[in-house]
Amino acid sequence: MSNSDLDNLIEIMAKLPGLGPRSARRAVLHMIKKRALLMVPLADTLQQVATTARECLNCSNICSGTDLCDICSSEKRLNGEICVVEDVADLWAMERAGVFKGRYHVLGGTLSALDAIGPEELRIPKLMDRVASENVREVILALNATIDGQTTAHYIAGELETRGVAATSLAQGVPIGGELDYLDDGTITAALKARKAV
Amino acid sequence: MSNSDLDNLIEIMAKLPGLGPRSARRAVLHMIKKRALLMVPLADTLQQVATTARECLNCSNICSGTDLCDICSSEKRLNGEICVVEDVADLWAMERAGVFKGRYHVLGGTLSALDAIGPEELRIPKLMDRVASENVREVILALNATIDGQTTAHYIAGELETRGVAATSLAQGVPIGGELDYLDDGTITAALKARKAV
Ligand SMILES: [Zn+2]
Ligand SMILES: [Zn+2]
Repeated sequence: MSNSDLDNLIEIMAKLPGLGPRSARRAVLHMIKKRALLMVPLADTLQQVATTARECLNCSNICSGTDLCDICSSEKRLNGEICVVEDVADLWAMERAGVFKGRYHVLGGTLSALDAIGPEELRIPKLMDRVASENVREVILALNATIDGQTTAHYIAGELETRGVAATSLAQGVPIGGELDYLDDGTITAALKARKAV
Repeated sequence: MSNSDLDNLIEIMAKLPGLGPRSARRAVLHMIKKRALLMVPLADTLQQVATTARECLNCSNICSGTDLCDICSSEKRLNGEICVVEDVADLWAMERAGVFKGRYHVLGGTLSALDAIGPEELRIPKLMDRVASENVREVILALNATIDGQTTAHYIAGELETRGVAATSLAQGVPIGGELDYLDDGTITAALKARKAV
């Protein structure tokens, strides 16, 4: 087939995380069948987001056509609390939980000796600026429970300590509904060490 | 977040087969990071395919802005042989194997008593028209090895017999319950070469 647009479309779709050539072909055929309901709206919305999406100048969340994201510009969010996350997906996960009422700071990754990623490559200097200018009392380090995530958390906690600002991190333990048999040893160890009186 | 375009985009992406909410979010974040390389080309190509894709008037393959698909209009394909497939994904699977040199006919499904799909709901009358007008010697029934697929193959073979046209089917080697689109090229090639009279 020299249907080059169709081949291009499948090739591009196959580059999305979670899709491969086969699922890209299935998705494209599905979209052609649902042209008005799915394919055209997807094309339009992609174009719209590609045009308007930008990085919040304050926290690096994604925002739409504005300098500050909805969270940074909302008067309903608490001042003085910043939750530090590795990336926007983690910010979204926190927001879905709906329990944190302060503001965020997206680092854009973790410190990594192997990949030569130091504090300057992340948005740690910007975080320290915000801690001073926004009169922050507490920084919650919601970083992934990986070695690099925890190294990063410790580094930031040290920086905050010299500035007299409290650093906390999410508790580690058994997830709600989690079955012990399915958990890794590290999680069980952490949960045991952090055990509480019933 | 009232980033409605972003939420819309995630919601639409999550409707694609093989994607759910989580993989849609990951895909959208990935695209925003690769805006020029991935998101804009995807939007453009989707728009292009949505505008130009249509059904081949002869075989119901997908074609781009023309009445006949590349296969139907190619002078390099053999006349007199038609390979009947259930849908376009199966046609693509046959083409990837690269061994069939004739032309195709996409039925658009299989006969199904349960779903009240009879010959008129598929493109079986059109197939019989083509068998006559294209002077077809052999019809290869490359239908899935499901009950409905085999019922459909037997029905078409019967219709062809009354017209004195040979009907063959892909050889065993297609696993029972297996769908063409899941098979590797070598299996399809072997099954085509060992095809037998129905
Ligand atoms: Zn922000
Ligand atoms: Zn055609």
